[in-house]
Amino acid sequence: MCNMKSNMLAFWRQHFVLEENMCEVDTTCITPEEVFKVSGHVARFNDIMVRDTVTGECIRADKYLEEWSETQLALPDVSPARREELLHLLHDVAGMNQNEIKEVLTANKIVSPKGNPFSEPFPFNLMFKSTIGPEGDRVGYMRPELAQGIILNFKRLLDSGNAQRMPFAGACIGTAFRNEIAPRSALIRVREFTLAEIEHFVNPNEKDHERFDRVRDIEIWAWPRDLQADNKEPMRLKIGEAVDKKIIDNQTLGYFVGRVALFLESIGVRHYRFRQHQANEMAHYAQDCWDAELLSSYGWIECVGIADRSAYDLTQHSRASKKDLCARVDYAEPRMERQLQRKLNKGLIGKTFGKQAADVMEYLNTAPEDACLDIQKQHAAGSDATVKICIGEVAITPAMVQFEHKEVKVTGYNYTPSVIEPSFGVGRILYCLLEQSYWVRRDGDAKNEKRAVFSFSPLIAPQKVAILPLMMKPELMGTVQNLRDTLIVRGLSVRIDDSGATIGRKYARVDELGIPFAITVDFETDGCVTLRERDSASQVRVAVEKVPEVLSDLCRSVQPRDWASVEKEFPAQAAPADK
Amino acid sequence: MCNMKSNMLAFWRQHFVLEENMCEVDTTCITPEEVFKVSGHVARFNDIMVRDTVTGECIRADKYLEEWSETQLALPDVSPARREELLHLLHDVAGMNQNEIKEVLTANKIVSPKGNPFSEPFPFNLMFKSTIGPEGDRVGYMRPELAQGIILNFKRLLDSGNAQRMPFAGACIGTAFRNEIAPRSALIRVREFTLAEIEHFVNPNEKDHERFDRVRDIEIWAWPRDLQADNKEPMRLKIGEAVDKKIIDNQTLGYFVGRVALFLESIGVRHYRFRQHQANEMAHYAQDCWDAELLSSYGWIECVGIADRSAYDLTQHSRASKKDLCARVDYAEPRMERQLQRKLNKGLIGKTFGKQAADVMEYLNTAPEDACLDIQKQHAAGSDATVKICIGEVAITPAMVQFEHKEVKVTGYNYTPSVIEPSFGVGRILYCLLEQSYWVRRDGDAKNEKRAVFSFSPLIAPQKVAILPLMMKPELMGTVQNLRDTLIVRGLSVRIDDSGATIGRKYARVDELGIPFAITVDFETDGCVTLRERDSASQVRVAVEKVPEVLSDLCRSVQPRDWASVEKEFPAQAAPADK
Repeated sequence: MCNMKSNMLAFWRQHFVLEENMCEVDTTCITPEEVFKVSGHVARFNDIMVRDTVTGECIRADKYLEEWSETQLALPDVSPARREELLHLLHDVAGMNQNEIKEVLTANKIVSPKGNPFSEPFPFNLMFKSTIGPEGDRVGYMRPELAQGIILNFKRLLDSGNAQRMPFAGACIGTAFRNEIAPRSALIRVREFTLAEIEHFVNPNEKDHERFDRVRDIEIWAWPRDLQADNKEPMRLKIGEAVDKKIIDNQTLGYFVGRVALFLESIGVRHYRFRQHQANEMAHYAQDCWDAELLSSYGWIECVGIADRSAYDLTQHSRASKKDLCARVDYAEPRMERQLQRKLNKGLIGKTFGKQAADVMEYLNTAPEDACLDIQKQHAAGSDATVKICIGEVAITPAMVQFEHKEVKVTGYNYTPSVIEPSFGVGRILYCLLEQSYWVRRDGDAKNEKRAVFSFSPLIAPQKVAILPLMMKPELMGTVQNLRDTLIVRGLSVRIDDSGATIGRKYARVDELGIPFAITVDFETDGCVTLRERDSASQVRVAVEKVPEVLSDLCRSVQPRDWASVEKEFPAQAAPADK
Repeated sequence: MCNMKSNMLAFWRQHFVLEENMCEVDTTCITPEEVFKVSGHVARFNDIMVRDTVTGECIRADKYLEEWSETQLALPDVSPARREELLHLLHDVAGMNQNEIKEVLTANKIVSPKGNPFSEPFPFNLMFKSTIGPEGDRVGYMRPELAQGIILNFKRLLDSGNAQRMPFAGACIGTAFRNEIAPRSALIRVREFTLAEIEHFVNPNEKDHERFDRVRDIEIWAWPRDLQADNKEPMRLKIGEAVDKKIIDNQTLGYFVGRVALFLESIGVRHYRFRQHQANEMAHYAQDCWDAELLSSYGWIECVGIADRSAYDLTQHSRASKKDLCARVDYAEPRMERQLQRKLNKGLIGKTFGKQAADVMEYLNTAPEDACLDIQKQHAAGSDATVKICIGEVAITPAMVQFEHKEVKVTGYNYTPSVIEPSFGVGRILYCLLEQSYWVRRDGDAKNEKRAVFSFSPLIAPQKVAILPLMMKPELMGTVQNLRDTLIVRGLSVRIDDSGATIGRKYARVDELGIPFAITVDFETDGCVTLRERDSASQVRVAVEKVPEVLSDLCRSVQPRDWASVEKEFPAQAAPADK
């Protein structure tokens, strides 16, 4: 597993960081409280929990309601109306708040697994908390995602990593932590896991992608939110078409959907689909979000999330830190533009609103144009304007602010970039890949023999090559040892099976371990060995000195050689050696 | 930095995990309290701290005393006696306990940096603490080292990873956490850092290493503890000689010293030495310990620790978990051995000692042979035997136990393996490497021009190749783009400098960024480009289609091609192109 993981991450770096010219960063797991206050995690990164009032056991409410609904649906004689109601519950439960969950629990008189009454539902923050430093007064949280670490480095990456060129992306591979209420389902819901995340920073007005044509014709299984709402199945869809029809919000988001599909195919994922988030599933600021879901025995598992987070995070951090987190577009030529000028009477606003004056001024300086024109209209009508801002309703008098349209010469504009974020759950992908790679071969020696096979792609297989001496004779073992050393030098992991088992039994072990290629070293004096490919069980004879090169090419991470070309180049070996 | 780190870790996997056939594991950062209670970290993983009684600032006492001693030594007119005393303090302070530190502080009337009195020294545990799960009642610590995670997996690795074959090693790369009282010195003392650790499990009676001959002739700078005690300088020493003379305790420890030296050389470390721990620096159970120290502007920095931890950890975990954590040696033929048989009267011991009977019985069952014979002797003299065990002194009567030597047939024996642990501080190595790679070239265009160079080895350089078009013409940019794509496919990171700077300025940038090879694409029609090596600034002409292969070979992680062979194969390019 550990080898598979590092192989997969090495390919992830190749496929995304290197090919897309991203800036990889490494940030800390322990994060000062301030960061997660600003990002909203301290207030809102909660699951709703209920407590068994007798045993004290804590249970995650939404997952419990999901299971409960499925159990109810499976009962005999469910009326069509009841069925409809339960299906709606299943559909909505992930987005429900504390009160809605309470209503469902009460209405259905739902009790704990032990049959006891539940406590009121209450929020439980999923971040692990600790204190930093010897004084014990600084709170830190273990990061529940990598995004904030990359986003906090935005300005540094823009300035020194990318010489001010937009768009660009930061990438990070690291551990994230969530104090899950109920870890379960093998590697799927755990408290500590590896994420690989990309934050692609882009001008919100220019979300086209210059290499979009490379993914335009990739066809995926897509499940747009309309189809989900209508209880319809996912459909085959070309990415170009999806973006043209605005099913996927923009080219950059679509580009990453395509690149994720290519990534999953390359590492050997066989069954996956892209599901669009329901409006109520997404964070309030998110523009669009698609999950790559992989099929497993636990159902379709969300393994990669590809979200357009808009400019939310950068805006929040910029506000809290009072730091400029903008990028800039310079026009080729200066332009004359009609702009709304805002003249604030700071003295009057300060006197009127005291401590809250800053909020009022921020509103007046940043309010959208139509809101400003609305104030202007009310003032023109001789009345004060009432506006609703973060501190409540306030009255703006005509003396406080004046708006005027002017033609001004502008050389460009500043903007807060949008962030498009593909985020990979590494352990989940690995787990689903394990399940999807497993099959049973029914062509063993004995007619009914069943042989387990893990069909790992050579790219991520934990061991690449098995060396199988036909006998433990010194003249063979010399060749075995030389082969091993040459392959290791090329970075290919090798397993030697020098046990006394039959060659058939040895091949069966190789299949069980998912090793893609096996070399059988025999007594023939032609200077050749037998090379066997795991999935097809086909075999060729290759000169010993050619073996390392052929295997390197077969296991290369990019543009690997395929087995068919090897079969063409070398003479086939009859099947009997497999017995 | 991030690229350098992942390149270094990839080579670490090649050099240790792959070549030495180790089992890599991945374990969690958050670790249940029980593990660190057993390992002794909860009780003893402390630094001694003092608090400024006025400002409340907390200060690490040993580091403060070190700095204080150095300041005192630098004063004019330090008497020889005082000098001696201060040097002893400097030498001892790292191993001092709370009371010893208190004595030094009081005797020298040492005050805080602000001139205020200090509190009493007190221990401060360096582990970050958190709680696991929704009930909030399970304590967890962020691991301060990786060792326990590998050691806890010993039995699993022995059984399924290594088919019971000893010796073998587990390896782990991951993040560790220490709540440092005073983080400082760039990347050298930080609260969160990457470690790469190996735990090599070996029979304590057979610490010879089968591949020791491969490192026997490696010569290192060694600083054995005798030389340190005598204030003598480190010496050149061959590893074979060091082990033969018992300067390094055993072959396995020496083997890893040699492999670490090769690793450091390969990644480009220029100045390093191996310093043996003083007896008072080592944990009480450690048999021997050598640190690879790298030179930096902060002095010699401990970057790799290579320790023989004896069987301590496995013994502790086995006791606490009541699980068998032994390996076994099977003799080729059964042997007759004279063994001490112990017959315990469990009833009597139980009645006599009540709850403490288990401890008494454990002692009698496991006490070394001479201790048993001593009890036997006292019983023979007609008296009870008084023995000191974990619960205090107890009296063992002759009725409680009988010892007898017997000849028995044995087929082998069980043992708790010793653990030899090379542990790498990844960030520290990187930091020292950055410093050691930096130099200034004085051969620029202008006579006095100084040009900064980072001489990173091709193996770990963050970017491998720079492509420098001589002009931004489309006919050149096509070649540039093709070259880039071909190199990326081979996993080589590329930086294109298509700015309008002179070629001399572009080479200077390449040097500053530590990029080992630069390709200059010019207008010549010979189908060739200029390839330049950074450190020598020597240049050759290579056909475009040959470039990717040559560069792949030059940057390969194992057995890379050297520049000299490239100079032999291709025609030299005159220097002017560098201007």
